[in-house]
Amino acid sequence: MHPGIKVFAPASVANIAVGYDILGFALDKPGDEILAKFKDRKGLVIKTITGGKGLPLEVEKNTAGFAAQRFLEHIGEADRGIEFEIRKKMPFGSGLGSSAASAVAGVMAVNELLDCPLEKRDLLPFAVQGEQIADGSYHADNVAPSLIGGMVLIRDNPSLDVHRLNVPKGLYATVVYPKIKILTRDSRAILSDQVLLKDHIKQSGNLAAFMLGLFNSDFALIGRALQDVIIEPQRRKLIPYFDEVQEAALKCGALGCSISGAGPSIFALSANSLIAEEAGNAMKKVFTDRKIRTKLFLSGINQEGAIKC
Amino acid sequence: MHPGIKVFAPASVANIAVGYDILGFALDKPGDEILAKFKDRKGLVIKTITGGKGLPLEVEKNTAGFAAQRFLEHIGEADRGIEFEIRKKMPFGSGLGSSAASAVAGVMAVNELLDCPLEKRDLLPFAVQGEQIADGSYHADNVAPSLIGGMVLIRDNPSLDVHRLNVPKGLYATVVYPKIKILTRDSRAILSDQVLLKDHIKQSGNLAAFMLGLFNSDFALIGRALQDVIIEPQRRKLIPYFDEVQEAALKCGALGCSISGAGPSIFALSANSLIAEEAGNAMKKVFTDRKIRTKLFLSGINQEGAIKC
Repeated sequence: MHPGIKVFAPASVANIAVGYDILGFALDKPGDEILAKFKDRKGLVIKTITGGKGLPLEVEKNTAGFAAQRFLEHIGEADRGIEFEIRKKMPFGSGLGSSAASAVAGVMAVNELLDCPLEKRDLLPFAVQGEQIADGSYHADNVAPSLIGGMVLIRDNPSLDVHRLNVPKGLYATVVYPKIKILTRDSRAILSDQVLLKDHIKQSGNLAAFMLGLFNSDFALIGRALQDVIIEPQRRKLIPYFDEVQEAALKCGALGCSISGAGPSIFALSANSLIAEEAGNAMKKVFTDRKIRTKLFLSGINQEGAIKC
Repeated sequence: MHPGIKVFAPASVANIAVGYDILGFALDKPGDEILAKFKDRKGLVIKTITGGKGLPLEVEKNTAGFAAQRFLEHIGEADRGIEFEIRKKMPFGSGLGSSAASAVAGVMAVNELLDCPLEKRDLLPFAVQGEQIADGSYHADNVAPSLIGGMVLIRDNPSLDVHRLNVPKGLYATVVYPKIKILTRDSRAILSDQVLLKDHIKQSGNLAAFMLGLFNSDFALIGRALQDVIIEPQRRKLIPYFDEVQEAALKCGALGCSISGAGPSIFALSANSLIAEEAGNAMKKVFTDRKIRTKLFLSGINQEGAIKC
């Protein structure tokens, strides 16, 4: 009897201030786990979901199930009897790529259970399809870092032209998640479909400089570059006390601080873990002083992505 | 008696398809020369300009003169008796940074004549001011490469946060200049002050990928990245046969082909000089077949910038 396997797929921070829909990085934690084993009856089933109130057990409506099923079809194993036990260990609707982590865990679980018919990287399209049923759009800025790890550029979402970026030694992430409800759909709807040319120029300069800063491990340049003049000014109003939180992070010496994905989580990047922790405590305090329950995550840039545990 | 000095400042290609107002590179030729020598009477004078019909001899109205004068004031030598002989050796209104080259040559000439009171890089603000009187806006995407050489990113124009980029071995430029009149002002006026968010995302992906391609000397990625979905679609209509020229370049294997600066010059980048030359001949043919007089320039990326000859 095959004992089954367990996989973990990490949370991720999309956009990174200057790369809306094209940049993201993976965190060490939190993340989602899936236990997968073979069963006698045909087809994939989701037996249980823990930690995810209201998430559907139905395979075709569940991000992990949908992604896994597309992958199984691709390799001609659509009828293979497989059972998932999904353990959501991260908040959803938090802007930390929860549905991406589930979709990634789904394809990873199947791949590992079947002794890796595909390379990890080739699982990407199926995981992106899985996330799409939750998010509505086909983009990999959470899925790609959750799967392959690291800091990731998606040159082009439709063709999944995905690239790992150099991560300077010491770079450390802070994420605070205030328990406020924002739907990704609302957070997308608030965005104008137009950008001022002058803002496009400014953001382009910052994006290119951020790339250069990563390559050269130039923290000062990363600090000057991490300024979002397009998305953050529109979305910050959805997150109470955002300005104060950002100011607190920068005052502690963080290189930059902005909204994680669609929010309400707020991330900061720092040149070392000490600053990241100080910034985290200061950021969290802004919310807890207002009696808003808040989770704090401190993490290096996760270089492994999804793993078999 | 001091014999005087001669300096050369090269032409440059601004924007490079994906970096409107923030990217540029220098060519080996063409470019402008200035001969400078001391004279007895106080102040800077422009004695002659060759090759620049209609350009003003008046120091405050001439880009080279204006730039040089601001620099002289900065170092407390405003009254120093200096005489310029300007030799314009490149077409102006061509989109090849002619006024930038003049402004750069102006500050270089003074600096060299006075035995380099400033580092070359520190001449940048004065040269940018010089170009501004011709162009109307304060930006360094032609001036910076002409002065310091190489492929250059300007993160932020107001603060002149300027960076040299890695240039992959073999990267070669083709420029064709069809003798058609376009004014930079018209070419700027035609641009919408708004950009679609989806185009901003696409261009951002390409810009970041271009940066990555330069760093990793990944020509295939550079090729996929060199696509301008914002500026070129608006400006191409100002240049007759642009589509055919671009197609001709890509058919020869060029990595990318777009408008140089405000046009009408068209540049291509190729992985080696052979492709660059073939592309150049094919691009030029499109114009000469229509009896449009055309100049072809082939050049590596000029790594020296302005020099004392």
